[in-house]
Amino acid sequence: MTLSPTPRSTVRRGRKRAVTERDALHAVLDAALVCHLAVVVDGAPLVLPTGFGRDGDTIYLHGSTGARSMREAATGIPVCVAVTLVDGVVYARSVFDHSMNYRSAVIHGTAVPVTDPAAKTHALRVLTEHIAPGSWDYARQPSAKELAATTVLAVDLAEASVKIRTGPPGDEDEDVAANRAWAGVLPLHTSWGTPEPDPLLVGEWDVPPHVSGRR
Amino acid sequence: MTLSPTPRSTVRRGRKRAVTERDALHAVLDAALVCHLAVVVDGAPLVLPTGFGRDGDTIYLHGSTGARSMREAATGIPVCVAVTLVDGVVYARSVFDHSMNYRSAVIHGTAVPVTDPAAKTHALRVLTEHIAPGSWDYARQPSAKELAATTVLAVDLAEASVKIRTGPPGDEDEDVAANRAWAGVLPLHTSWGTPEPDPLLVGEWDVPPHVSGRR
Repeated sequence: MTLSPTPRSTVRRGRKRAVTERDALHAVLDAALVCHLAVVVDGAPLVLPTGFGRDGDTIYLHGSTGARSMREAATGIPVCVAVTLVDGVVYARSVFDHSMNYRSAVIHGTAVPVTDPAAKTHALRVLTEHIAPGSWDYARQPSAKELAATTVLAVDLAEASVKIRTGPPGDEDEDVAANRAWAGVLPLHTSWGTPEPDPLLVGEWDVPPHVSGRR
Repeated sequence: MTLSPTPRSTVRRGRKRAVTERDALHAVLDAALVCHLAVVVDGAPLVLPTGFGRDGDTIYLHGSTGARSMREAATGIPVCVAVTLVDGVVYARSVFDHSMNYRSAVIHGTAVPVTDPAAKTHALRVLTEHIAPGSWDYARQPSAKELAATTVLAVDLAEASVKIRTGPPGDEDEDVAANRAWAGVLPLHTSWGTPEPDPLLVGEWDVPPHVSGRR
């Protein structure tokens, strides 16, 4: 399925980097741990990092009921959500053609508060399994009080764009021909480290497989 | 020097995670490759990933003169810039206390276009040295035409907040006492991979030290 861009979700710069497959959008979202949620407050922009999770063509965002961005977004105002993964630095022969390899998604929509208890529980499960796969069934699930203290917002993925840059620099022909400087890509990798057990654990514990085996 | 928070840059949620040292702000900015720039367009928020660099208490942002976010921001409207580094996933004994370890900075300000040629060249040097340290002196520097094709914006760091979360989960006492689940932190590391030379390089090239030695 292809994305259906509207004027504001149409990629204007770097069209050759725009990817129109919905699977690509899902893949970018699924690979990221946080998104950046932007709202308008008193006429000025506010952008904050926010946890999220995806279920089909909906993303769920959550935060404390007291967080300003969540309060504002929960009133049904327009939101913009960006997810960005940096994959490397592109060293070109010219400063001007330096770039980064990246995968990014930008979503425009209206945040809809999820208030129905069953729907909210489902959304929190999606969020939890995005941030910490396996934790929903392993850890203690939310109490009624904890559910009430969490704001969950749903944003539809209907209006979204994806940009992906991969590969070597795009130097000018003259710079390539001059062959005066090294050029290439320095990849940036992310990896999980060694689990650090909470000092408050009592007794001997094996790290559970959903943590130790996370890829 | 401490930050001087205004009402909108005062951290309301998780006050214990707010860091008020300007050095901490600088350190967060210097450790990140991209920021997220938010502007208001037609009353709706727009947030996009953007390259940046810091010089003292100014950050420079750049993009194509054709990019919408840059065009909008260059008109002197309010901007918000967020920089986020995720350091790990915090596995708590309860789903509710799951979290992430992170370093984040949020800056509120007005983007000022940098148009004076000397100032613009300086800003591009700062930007280049942030994204690819060593490249300004190594690669071909911008031509007049390339300078003209780049929009550079300056944002003052006067109004900024920093939040940092480190350490183990903050479970409820009852959950700790119950000792029914493993808890701890799974660190997330980023590292540079092996440089990938541009296939268009002619002849044998050693990877230059500013690339091969990047930390």
